[in-house]
Amino acid sequence: MKQIIKVGMLGIGNVGRGTYETLEMNHQKIAETTGLDIEIVKILNRHPEKDRGIDIPAEKYTQNVADILDDPEIDIVIELIGGIEPATEYMARALSNGKSVVTANKAAIAANGKRLAALAQENHALLRFEAAVAGGIPILTSLTTALLSNRFTAVHGILNGTTNYILTQMSEFGADYADVLKDAQAKGFAEADPTADVEGLDAANKLSILISLIFGIEVSPETLPTQGITRVGLEDIEFAKESGYRIKLLATAREKDGKVCANVQPALVPINHPLSSVSNEFNAVYVTGNAVDNLMFYGRGAGPLPTGSAVVGDVIGIARKLEKNSAYDLVPQLRYDSGLEFDGEGTNKYYLRMMVPERTGILGRIATIFGEHDISIESIRQNAPYELDGERVAHLIIIVFPVSKPQLNDALDAIRKDGVIKSVDNIMRVEE
Amino acid sequence: MKQIIKVGMLGIGNVGRGTYETLEMNHQKIAETTGLDIEIVKILNRHPEKDRGIDIPAEKYTQNVADILDDPEIDIVIELIGGIEPATEYMARALSNGKSVVTANKAAIAANGKRLAALAQENHALLRFEAAVAGGIPILTSLTTALLSNRFTAVHGILNGTTNYILTQMSEFGADYADVLKDAQAKGFAEADPTADVEGLDAANKLSILISLIFGIEVSPETLPTQGITRVGLEDIEFAKESGYRIKLLATAREKDGKVCANVQPALVPINHPLSSVSNEFNAVYVTGNAVDNLMFYGRGAGPLPTGSAVVGDVIGIARKLEKNSAYDLVPQLRYDSGLEFDGEGTNKYYLRMMVPERTGILGRIATIFGEHDISIESIRQNAPYELDGERVAHLIIIVFPVSKPQLNDALDAIRKDGVIKSVDNIMRVEE
Repeated sequence: MKQIIKVGMLGIGNVGRGTYETLEMNHQKIAETTGLDIEIVKILNRHPEKDRGIDIPAEKYTQNVADILDDPEIDIVIELIGGIEPATEYMARALSNGKSVVTANKAAIAANGKRLAALAQENHALLRFEAAVAGGIPILTSLTTALLSNRFTAVHGILNGTTNYILTQMSEFGADYADVLKDAQAKGFAEADPTADVEGLDAANKLSILISLIFGIEVSPETLPTQGITRVGLEDIEFAKESGYRIKLLATAREKDGKVCANVQPALVPINHPLSSVSNEFNAVYVTGNAVDNLMFYGRGAGPLPTGSAVVGDVIGIARKLEKNSAYDLVPQLRYDSGLEFDGEGTNKYYLRMMVPERTGILGRIATIFGEHDISIESIRQNAPYELDGERVAHLIIIVFPVSKPQLNDALDAIRKDGVIKSVDNIMRVEE
Repeated sequence: MKQIIKVGMLGIGNVGRGTYETLEMNHQKIAETTGLDIEIVKILNRHPEKDRGIDIPAEKYTQNVADILDDPEIDIVIELIGGIEPATEYMARALSNGKSVVTANKAAIAANGKRLAALAQENHALLRFEAAVAGGIPILTSLTTALLSNRFTAVHGILNGTTNYILTQMSEFGADYADVLKDAQAKGFAEADPTADVEGLDAANKLSILISLIFGIEVSPETLPTQGITRVGLEDIEFAKESGYRIKLLATAREKDGKVCANVQPALVPINHPLSSVSNEFNAVYVTGNAVDNLMFYGRGAGPLPTGSAVVGDVIGIARKLEKNSAYDLVPQLRYDSGLEFDGEGTNKYYLRMMVPERTGILGRIATIFGEHDISIESIRQNAPYELDGERVAHLIIIVFPVSKPQLNDALDAIRKDGVIKSVDNIMRVEE
């Protein structure tokens, strides 16, 4: 008793190709294990002249999006054009037409997930986006099925492969940020305009989605304190190594006493923590639940086939529900009603790298100002001085006990005004 | 619109307590996110005089299993008494009565999963056992939902916390196997009779279940080539460290050309492989799919609450289906019909530790015999000789390129007959 599921796909770039290939190569296996005959019947292809490097019958292509969104034969629409618009508009139209939607679009879900989830519910349709967070890693499905038995208190994610690749290469080969970025661009691991990756915006989109699933509140990516990796220098990586840490761009959210603190920021992760072993382009999500304790999911966060795996997994999940006519079985994945409160970045242990002139009394002066601002210093270390622009300077590395960012910034302003340092060159979180 | 789901539980040992506690502490959160009001209404407790260290109303307890298995009010039966019988008989009776069953019982599922899965299907009931493999890690749910889009080619698991704890402690503190085992028993990490853990039988039960889910064939735990950790010595751990490996008890299954090779055996895992960082009592499952590539799931494989997390997760999964009257939506998790063929241990790279007398010509003789048996040596190393029972002896460590176990054993027999060595003291797999 095979059930035919007709799917329309918007976009045939890398992920589109990976999705099509995943379905092609595993079509028979999927049919055998689930009884579903899933067929991609129409593909929106705005540039039919472009060679996509994949053999797809020409009659499947259309340049008219209505051929997919408004075709009553199509059960599920896969959105893979990326960007917030027109992707959101297309998904909304598909849902309004009673079609279920699968997307890999983190930006659109982070921006408009609430509206799209509501539309899905109104129209007895399903909205799934496993591929939008950590690519092939089945974190969203796990959180909304097997792990529903938990109340989660924290999530820590390495959610961006480009930045993790850059940081790993810097750490392993002592290569400079700019050189590694250039190399990553040449290899296709980083985009020509790397801003969204290296400034942490991509990770912030994903964290915003995770926060909705895990904590049930809406925190827009723009609201999330976000800092990229552009200020991470080899001196930071060296210090981290010597002190038993690796530097990772971490997306973190934690709940305590009804308040959720979150941010995206480079962080020193202890070398014996499982997240510190996540290298190169790999992603990982580390969640802490009140029953399951710590769990880590590790895998490929990007790439045509791993992303295709997640997209097709969502299609199968929806199709198994459609098959049973239980499309109203719609516990929404996105939630915004838990009553928890977003409370910014919270208090964290911070790592500070400053540049100071070689002069006596500086350490004492800095320690005094921190003291006046009620900030406790865990460790302080001055590296060997060197000549810069005719002046003897040194890197000063300070780790302070947990403090809020505004409180830290006040102290740093006072230190700057005091004229005791030349500059604050990097601030990172320290994970405990 | 809350739906009340009535659950009966067989057994109130550690996992029973953890399950009850998980449900108690997260009852409200589960109700809010799923609309389900899950209530454990009856608990089989053969020893009501025993203090279980948990506050459960006395009227929930029964000593009569029929009060649970035959009560038409009960929707779901949780089986946590362990062992193959009478657990299997109880689960069969519950399924025959149309109740869905959740169990953490790897031995019963490995032995009787086929029969129980068929019974479930006949009776339009569900059978779930996430907790039976790797405790709180949602590996079975992921494989049978989000990852259905893949054909898997390999699974490597650290599936037993006791042995991983012992191997980690031996490696980190240079402690002897027997001492660490004693310490683990004192701390409650190892049972008084540790046989099932240290001989690999527990891991074999779990691997048998994974093979059914991943490859769709039946391989009973008794059929799986299984070797425990009792022969792993500090000299092996030392050699592994120096050569860039860690020793892990790996449960492995691989598919190639329609044949599945599998075994449970200590293995040298390269230090940069994610599995090598899995320490102490933690478990991990590393799967390789043709779309998703490599994925690793890491977490607690045992303990009351992590196991309770998986059990309650299964209960929620079933309840969400019952709620929609779609209990016939029963793609079985266990499969035995893929047509793949079990082919034993397959060919592997092996590590051999022998004891040899200090005498010239021995390396040459051994190399010659391996050559005569068509076995290629990758590396060979003799440690410093020492005095044993009035004789100078040395450890000889040889790594051979992939070979089948029978072929390797033939060569070792010939070497033994030749009288050139004193003994073969350990054989392990080498992961590449």
